[in-house]
Amino acid sequence: MYFDVASTAPLHPVARQALTAALDEGWADPARLYRSGRQARMLLDAARETVAEVLGARADEISFTASGTQAVHLGMLGALAGNRRRGSHLVHSAVEHSSVLHTAERWASPRPESGGETAGDPVTVVPVDRYGRVSPEAFAAALRPDTALAVLQSANHEVGTVQPVAEVAERCGDVPLLVDAAQSAGRVDVPAGWSLLAASAHKWGGPAGVGVLAVRKGVRYASPLPADERERGRVPGYVNVPAIVAAAASLRAVRAEAERENARLHALVERIRAAVPRLVPEVEVVGDPVRRLPHLVTFSCLYVDGEVLLTELDRAGFAVSSGSSCTSSTLTPSHVLAAMGVLTEGNVRVSLPFGAAEADVERFLAVLPGVVAGVRAPLGLDLPAPAGAGEPEAAPEAAPAPGPAAGLVIDALGKRCPLPVIELAKRIGDVPPGGTVAVLADDEAARLDIPAWCGMRGQEYLGEAPAADYGADRGAAYLVRRTA
Amino acid sequence: MYFDVASTAPLHPVARQALTAALDEGWADPARLYRSGRQARMLLDAARETVAEVLGARADEISFTASGTQAVHLGMLGALAGNRRRGSHLVHSAVEHSSVLHTAERWASPRPESGGETAGDPVTVVPVDRYGRVSPEAFAAALRPDTALAVLQSANHEVGTVQPVAEVAERCGDVPLLVDAAQSAGRVDVPAGWSLLAASAHKWGGPAGVGVLAVRKGVRYASPLPADERERGRVPGYVNVPAIVAAAASLRAVRAEAERENARLHALVERIRAAVPRLVPEVEVVGDPVRRLPHLVTFSCLYVDGEVLLTELDRAGFAVSSGSSCTSSTLTPSHVLAAMGVLTEGNVRVSLPFGAAEADVERFLAVLPGVVAGVRAPLGLDLPAPAGAGEPEAAPEAAPAPGPAAGLVIDALGKRCPLPVIELAKRIGDVPPGGTVAVLADDEAARLDIPAWCGMRGQEYLGEAPAADYGADRGAAYLVRRTA
Repeated sequence: MYFDVASTAPLHPVARQALTAALDEGWADPARLYRSGRQARMLLDAARETVAEVLGARADEISFTASGTQAVHLGMLGALAGNRRRGSHLVHSAVEHSSVLHTAERWASPRPESGGETAGDPVTVVPVDRYGRVSPEAFAAALRPDTALAVLQSANHEVGTVQPVAEVAERCGDVPLLVDAAQSAGRVDVPAGWSLLAASAHKWGGPAGVGVLAVRKGVRYASPLPADERERGRVPGYVNVPAIVAAAASLRAVRAEAERENARLHALVERIRAAVPRLVPEVEVVGDPVRRLPHLVTFSCLYVDGEVLLTELDRAGFAVSSGSSCTSSTLTPSHVLAAMGVLTEGNVRVSLPFGAAEADVERFLAVLPGVVAGVRAPLGLDLPAPAGAGEPEAAPEAAPAPGPAAGLVIDALGKRCPLPVIELAKRIGDVPPGGTVAVLADDEAARLDIPAWCGMRGQEYLGEAPAADYGADRGAAYLVRRTA
Repeated sequence: MYFDVASTAPLHPVARQALTAALDEGWADPARLYRSGRQARMLLDAARETVAEVLGARADEISFTASGTQAVHLGMLGALAGNRRRGSHLVHSAVEHSSVLHTAERWASPRPESGGETAGDPVTVVPVDRYGRVSPEAFAAALRPDTALAVLQSANHEVGTVQPVAEVAERCGDVPLLVDAAQSAGRVDVPAGWSLLAASAHKWGGPAGVGVLAVRKGVRYASPLPADERERGRVPGYVNVPAIVAAAASLRAVRAEAERENARLHALVERIRAAVPRLVPEVEVVGDPVRRLPHLVTFSCLYVDGEVLLTELDRAGFAVSSGSSCTSSTLTPSHVLAAMGVLTEGNVRVSLPFGAAEADVERFLAVLPGVVAGVRAPLGLDLPAPAGAGEPEAAPEAAPAPGPAAGLVIDALGKRCPLPVIELAKRIGDVPPGGTVAVLADDEAARLDIPAWCGMRGQEYLGEAPAADYGADRGAAYLVRRTA
């Protein structure tokens, strides 16, 4: 069962047919004047028309890139270079795709071309709420007279939260806005108001190797790459006609199927959102419950290592993703979950492909509790029943009055998450109600996960103290008062 | 009949099979930990091993790009950035692919990041001989203590001349040498001595969308693009596993077939090289007759517009290319032919795919004279018999003694090549032997084509004079003495 369509969608049958046909009919160089070249050019032109129509652009605004990441890189750097007169300030939300963040880092770093002497350009990151959503007002407040570019995703790739793009676009005025529509293109209409648009074909069921960069007529753009006459001078290199033809054909097909499939997948995701907290103890479903992509849901499981959970779910036959989908091989917590201030432990992203069967979703829900319990079992924790189990649930006992602080210190230095939280859960009972525990930890994820654990377990998070106060030379001390 | 494999090769049957299989088996994200992701990763690793083996590299030296052009851009900019301590001087030959020239232009232009204030970095262009070949000594002489990168193609894409890469590499010492092997990879062994290597799969029969950038262990490299963890941090964006698998499979297949096919194609090209001057009057076969690619031959036809010739050959069923293969939509003459100092008029590049039939080549030779004659007929020129026709050829009459200069001025201002040469050919008989003709022209190609015409027709080229000397406000006057 493949539930990771947000990473890449299986090739749509229409894409496969179109690819096979275009390998026969559109294999030649579209820049050539002989028959096979002209035929490739015709197919390319038709594909461009199709993509433009579905995305709400003009054909001459569309350039095909090699990937969504390349579309973002070129779109951002090209718009920043083209709007130098305006200034060099860049604004983006805290939960953009890593391709946006990495371009901003490059923009903010001193220029290697100048021998590293000049300072980097300024970047403002707009925070998000606990659902992962920017506020249009906060976004507007980040804009400055020297802002050359603003960047906002159409919907978040990790938690599915839909961003208020049209409202932000309105507030951007004449500041160019790049909308990263990689997660929504083909599934839902592209929101109005973009100046530049980036998308990726393999996310909608097209082949790998095709991204889309649209630049609205009149938006200033200066290519950051060496000159090349192809793709309106925006994307150098031989044009991959067969893959572009397949991308266009599948985009049209997917968009037509979306109406029916979106409603169906929306209901399946609703089912998962409601069921998971009832079936699994100590779990947090994250992302906006209403303003969300139809097919994507993310939740985090306390005390669990995300990678271990994925491996166990894979053994049970389910392919899902975890944490930041583009940095899974790194050990840092997902920047999206961090920006939302939610639990990063045991994170699971379920993203359903078109045609996902209800029976498979039910099977996932049947298997999940046992898998999570299996991962947690060796920890020997005393877990409460799931939040929604056995309803009507007995009212929780009134919290006991705070007693004297016991001052327990848990040394979790050098231990990777979720170990610091596991230690905390195991030992908080050692202090009386009202007592405090200090957890010493140097894994960055603890900064997110300990407050999140407190929120979920009804304990009081008191904040951070310097590690040195507890005789440690690294990390920090996270202070918790036992109230439950 | 497709005789333009130097633009793009038809998809090799092995590539098609591998692509179809990899769309089934390798469609998932190779960065994922679940089964389908691990399977994609295995296929990717195997493809990397194959490509490394055929190209004479280590697997961990290979990164897959989206095109040969991207491989050149990244290879050049990454090596230049990585070798900043050495300096910023760049050396390349005058006949490199446009991707090299455009990267050099970008490198030489003032940095937009610094507001255009600082000067660009220095670039030295190494000239070539009439065969399009650099001399290792001239290349070595261009190197300086601050040279950060040297670039040389393995073989020329327009005329097929093989460059002395190994000899140049030896002279480069510790200056990094990027070898652009796009035209030869898969067909002949990659020459020794490269520090960086660029290639393109669709040139060897692989699918579009795959280039190769190899960076030798120990060569300094700093990515010019925003960070990304894929492909050793060198090529951002989702990895196109199915296309890479197809590229690797076809590279291995092509390399195995090359031994047999190279000899066969070499003989067919030899046949064309010998036959064309016998069959077509006023034609020049260009490129090195010996140190050349097996499958590629280029010739130029006096008085003919290359585009018109291509269109007529296309009507006759032959797909061939002309001039600079990557700038066919521009009106400037090919920089390669210009650097060689040869005729740019009526340029035709024939590049034979594997399996090209001898009968088709004979058919091309049968059709060509009529096609060229048909294009020339409306010009009303009195053309000599082909150089090799009716051998043993009668010895040309001794040139008459120079008579008094007639001072004929031909005003070809505003006329595009080949019109200035056509006018010259038509009217040179108006002056007596020994008389001179001045051709006023403002098409840049005239600078190359008038001397080339003189060489071919046994007339004496006297050089250029300012247009103002002849009362014109633009272009130049090209002076010719009638000796034949």
